[in-house]
Amino acid sequence: MKVTVSRKAHFNAAHRLYRKDWDDEKNDAVFGKCNNPNFHGHNYELIVSVTGEIDPETGYVIDMKVLKDLIKSEIENAFDHKNLNVEVPEFKNLNPTAENIVVVIFNKLRPHLSNHLGLEVTLYETPRNFVSYSDA
Amino acid sequence: MKVTVSRKAHFNAAHRLYRKDWDDEKNDAVFGKCNNPNFHGHNYELIVSVTGEIDPETGYVIDMKVLKDLIKSEIENAFDHKNLNVEVPEFKNLNPTAENIVVVIFNKLRPHLSNHLGLEVTLYETPRNFVSYSDA
Amino acid sequence: MKVTVSRKAHFNAAHRLYRKDWDDEKNDAVFGKCNNPNFHGHNYELIVSVTGEIDPETGYVIDMKVLKDLIKSEIENAFDHKNLNVEVPEFKNLNPTAENIVVVIFNKLRPHLSNHLGLEVTLYETPRNFVSYSDA
Amino acid sequence: MKVTVSRKAHFNAAHRLYRKDWDDEKNDAVFGKCNNPNFHGHNYELIVSVTGEIDPETGYVIDMKVLKDLIKSEIENAFDHKNLNVEVPEFKNLNPTAENIVVVIFNKLRPHLSNHLGLEVTLYETPRNFVSYSDA
Amino acid sequence: MKVTVSRKAHFNAAHRLYRKDWDDEKNDAVFGKCNNPNFHGHNYELIVSVTGEIDPETGYVIDMKVLKDLIKSEIENAFDHKNLNVEVPEFKNLNPTAENIVVVIFNKLRPHLSNHLGLEVTLYETPRNFVSYSDA
Amino acid sequence: MKVTVSRKAHFNAAHRLYRKDWDDEKNDAVFGKCNNPNFHGHNYELIVSVTGEIDPETGYVIDMKVLKDLIKSEIENAFDHKNLNVEVPEFKNLNPTAENIVVVIFNKLRPHLSNHLGLEVTLYETPRNFVSYSDA
Repeated sequence: MKVTVSRKAHFNAAHRLYRKDWDDEKNDAVFGKCNNPNFHGHNYELIVSVTGEIDPETGYVIDMKVLKDLIKSEIENAFDHKNLNVEVPEFKNLNPTAENIVVVIFNKLRPHLSNHLGLEVTLYETPRNFVSYSDA
Repeated sequence: MKVTVSRKAHFNAAHRLYRKDWDDEKNDAVFGKCNNPNFHGHNYELIVSVTGEIDPETGYVIDMKVLKDLIKSEIENAFDHKNLNVEVPEFKNLNPTAENIVVVIFNKLRPHLSNHLGLEVTLYETPRNFVSYSDA
Repeated sequence: MKVTVSRKAHFNAAHRLYRKDWDDEKNDAVFGKCNNPNFHGHNYELIVSVTGEIDPETGYVIDMKVLKDLIKSEIENAFDHKNLNVEVPEFKNLNPTAENIVVVIFNKLRPHLSNHLGLEVTLYETPRNFVSYSDA
Repeated sequence: MKVTVSRKAHFNAAHRLYRKDWDDEKNDAVFGKCNNPNFHGHNYELIVSVTGEIDPETGYVIDMKVLKDLIKSEIENAFDHKNLNVEVPEFKNLNPTAENIVVVIFNKLRPHLSNHLGLEVTLYETPRNFVSYSDA
Repeated sequence: MKVTVSRKAHFNAAHRLYRKDWDDEKNDAVFGKCNNPNFHGHNYELIVSVTGEIDPETGYVIDMKVLKDLIKSEIENAFDHKNLNVEVPEFKNLNPTAENIVVVIFNKLRPHLSNHLGLEVTLYETPRNFVSYSDA
Repeated sequence: MKVTVSRKAHFNAAHRLYRKDWDDEKNDAVFGKCNNPNFHGHNYELIVSVTGEIDPETGYVIDMKVLKDLIKSEIENAFDHKNLNVEVPEFKNLNPTAENIVVVIFNKLRPHLSNHLGLEVTLYETPRNFVSYSDA
């Protein structure tokens, strides 16, 4: 049996939902006010969950401080106080919906965790809307 | 790999836990103060989670606004500011425990979501008591 | 300078907003769906705040356990799992709006606290609606 | 003695902290990463609190539905999914710090409330940063 | 299909992370400030989740009051206001990391629940760090 | 009219409530399980609120980053992961009740804020118990 260790973090950012290859009318029809060309923004709350065996030496699945620092270097530094569409390369040609953001975060963290650890990422876009993605 | 999209909603309602086919003594023994014949009530917090592939066109698993409107039309309109025992047909002969309510909500939402989407419903009866039901 | 000590508590109850001396049409116009004759209900979250000098002997303004027990005996025992309109004497002829409930709670607690202590009562009817009343 | 009635609401928006009459160096020194020219954003949580006597007829200080609708028409419709710097006239020449936003919200609501009611507005910019302004 | 019933509880305790068989230098290197020999402490928030079929008689998977009382007698009475290292026998030779605590809680509860019920235990060490363990 | 700016912070610590000049029996009678000689602990949540005029140049009452750094240097560094009774000089001869801790925090912050700013400190000892102290 395995234990899951979770760490909450936070970043805020601006974004806009739209596709460059659609005209304004179609973008408005599909994305509504989220397609505001002047952008809007969110306080994104992030939960990163790592699943594995407890190391009998330390009593840790993963050192929570290591996990906190990984989230800081890989995610907060890249996303916090940024415009996702304009400044984050992964969204140059990818619509920054909550679904796409959570997959991008997962893919940025996954290579830093050993293969025997499961990973789940949950992202709150607002207190009422959230998404999650995992291989746990 | 699939992404789960969740939406929180809210309704408040009155209810009473009891079985018509049990006498008062047995209802009191099993349901205690929840068997108050004058009813008591709760602010029910609801989380509806839908799991599926991201549509590469929109970046959505499901449009959060569609999900919000579905919860409004199917659940909030039917349950909010209602007496569950008296006014909600599903509980005419079904004890409105949190467990039974969450299954009723699941069954009301399920037909409106395509078969390739998984569904999980979580219901908070109080900030300390909650239940969940899923086919995800 | 004085310190304020606060304690959170919880009760849930059914209620209905209406005046016996108004006809149905007027009650509906003023109280809307809160006038459902079959009742609806809430998880009421309660914060009781007591302000006074710190006792230099104990380091307490008031023993938090004393305050917790007072809320239990005076408020939770009287209101929890009750129908406010039907079973709580204070609302026999008083409409159980959040405003009236918070004043009733204040008046039930006030005589149990010495005169040199200030009192404030805050009552959440839902996570988005709350009221407060004080002589602090 | 008076009762305070509070209502929570929500909007999300993009903004940037800077002064047009300062050069980039000074704006960066004072506003740091909040001066990102591509904007960043927040989920703003808003609490509007109205203080007054309870109307003995209705048991209300103010009808919570009236307060909710006022916040919707005056604040949410003006700010939600907007770029505060670009699209909200009050910030054309006013830096949209949390402090300035809360005063703007107060000034938009105040004329719609009668003079005998006190008003306090609290605004959460993030879960850890918030401001409030009142004449209560 | 099965329903999961969850109950939140709370205890606070002091602890220290270290291994008796390591010297101070190694304990400091691995556990940092959590190795303070004078102890530090937490408000542990606990969620116990039980999964099973709904009893068609009662509408319960498990009576929430039974679950609440079980958590009180087995966990709160043993851990609340205690020093985990000094006073809780399970940690005499086991480092009280969140991971080890959640497994100990699971093992204390498991024998009191029938075999056809699944069990998951989630433990918040701080509002930002939490762990979970299950056989569900 | 003045605006209040608030910042939330966090520390966790061990403590014990007792007076050296009382015998065990009296300490037990007054402080109950909080008098455990092996200590217990809490996640203390802290809110520091500063009230003043908005600086028309910056739009700030106080730079939130300055306030965050002040709380870090004066309070978190002194209290986090510490045993309040043993390691924090202010509690050498002062019982670390929530009331006394909040006054100590206030007194440590006050000299770092100019006289024209009001200060209020709120401290959550548990999610249900909190205290506040102010000269605002």
